[in-house]
Amino acid sequence: MKTYTDYLYFTTKQEREIVNITHEIEQAVKRSGVKEGLVLVNSMHITSSVFINDEESGLKQDFLKWLEKIAPARLDYKHHQTGETNADAHLKRTIMGREVVVAITKGALDFGPWEQIFYGEFDGRRKKRVLVKVIGE
Amino acid sequence: MKTYTDYLYFTTKQEREIVNITHEIEQAVKRSGVKEGLVLVNSMHITSSVFINDEESGLKQDFLKWLEKIAPARLDYKHHQTGETNADAHLKRTIMGREVVVAITKGALDFGPWEQIFYGEFDGRRKKRVLVKVIGE
Amino acid sequence: MKTYTDYLYFTTKQEREIVNITHEIEQAVKRSGVKEGLVLVNSMHITSSVFINDEESGLKQDFLKWLEKIAPARLDYKHHQTGETNADAHLKRTIMGREVVVAITKGALDFGPWEQIFYGEFDGRRKKRVLVKVIGE
Repeated sequence: MKTYTDYLYFTTKQEREIVNITHEIEQAVKRSGVKEGLVLVNSMHITSSVFINDEESGLKQDFLKWLEKIAPARLDYKHHQTGETNADAHLKRTIMGREVVVAITKGALDFGPWEQIFYGEFDGRRKKRVLVKVIGE
Repeated sequence: MKTYTDYLYFTTKQEREIVNITHEIEQAVKRSGVKEGLVLVNSMHITSSVFINDEESGLKQDFLKWLEKIAPARLDYKHHQTGETNADAHLKRTIMGREVVVAITKGALDFGPWEQIFYGEFDGRRKKRVLVKVIGE
Repeated sequence: MKTYTDYLYFTTKQEREIVNITHEIEQAVKRSGVKEGLVLVNSMHITSSVFINDEESGLKQDFLKWLEKIAPARLDYKHHQTGETNADAHLKRTIMGREVVVAITKGALDFGPWEQIFYGEFDGRRKKRVLVKVIGE
């Protein structure tokens, strides 16, 4: 049995941004040497996400607009009594999800035709981390 | 250590449909021979879901009605400028989730009394795939 | 390869409650003896969640208020024709998620600075279970 751990670092230019990280995860899986197993990819922060969807720029805009509608930036969250201003980012990340688990088959991500992995940042412009953990043989 | 990979195929009759796949996953786990481990079950498409909830027909209708309310089918998504018409299906699938990871204990799905696995289709009437990956011993 | 299975039991005082279970999961990981691997933590019920976010009391109130807005308790769900009254709890749990998968590195949860694991109860005041499954070496 093999395990492999890696960390990716992101500092987005925008407060909210969706970044395609599929290539970075493919490279980590190659480095792991695992041919059959699972890879966990998760945000290590609670105001950003890792999720799987389609690489299409209009859809990314739709996601951000939709998130603003169902989890709006507002002043009156209780969390803001601590001095924070990012409660909406905690909610947005909850909708999009913290993590994905992807199968590794024959040494590669076992993906459907349109699956791509994204880092979703909702409180950006500062350094954040994503964890990659591979387990298998 | 053992790993096992299988693919399930679905062509739903309805555009939006919730299909109980618990039995298919139980059979795949048996075929894997794994007694202790994990099984990942994920949609390989970005407009459908795999999730766990209750087998109750009214609740399935509630889910579909609720999803239409918070992620409605509309014409004005940016994604539709590509010619696609299914942006809402990408959002609905995000709410319901891409994947589940289930424990295998003593050779069976380690489930609570009401847990059942469902395939949630939001852009159906065409052939789609679900991945089953088992890892353990 | 090692695997380890444990069950946690909760009977919340409130119908809706968010309980920090990070310490319990850390203890289970220690008992497992696994140094490198994955831990799955999932609710075994379909009206409660396991999720990762921030330990901050105001934010927990924000979560519960927000869930009530997007998945409100109402009388007219189809699920209630069975005699049940908790359809909203099924929806709330869907938003918050059934499970988390966390990396174990050097014998500990491989967490970012603010990550904490919570049990989210949406139909409480009765005994419920959470599953902890560890796999690794």
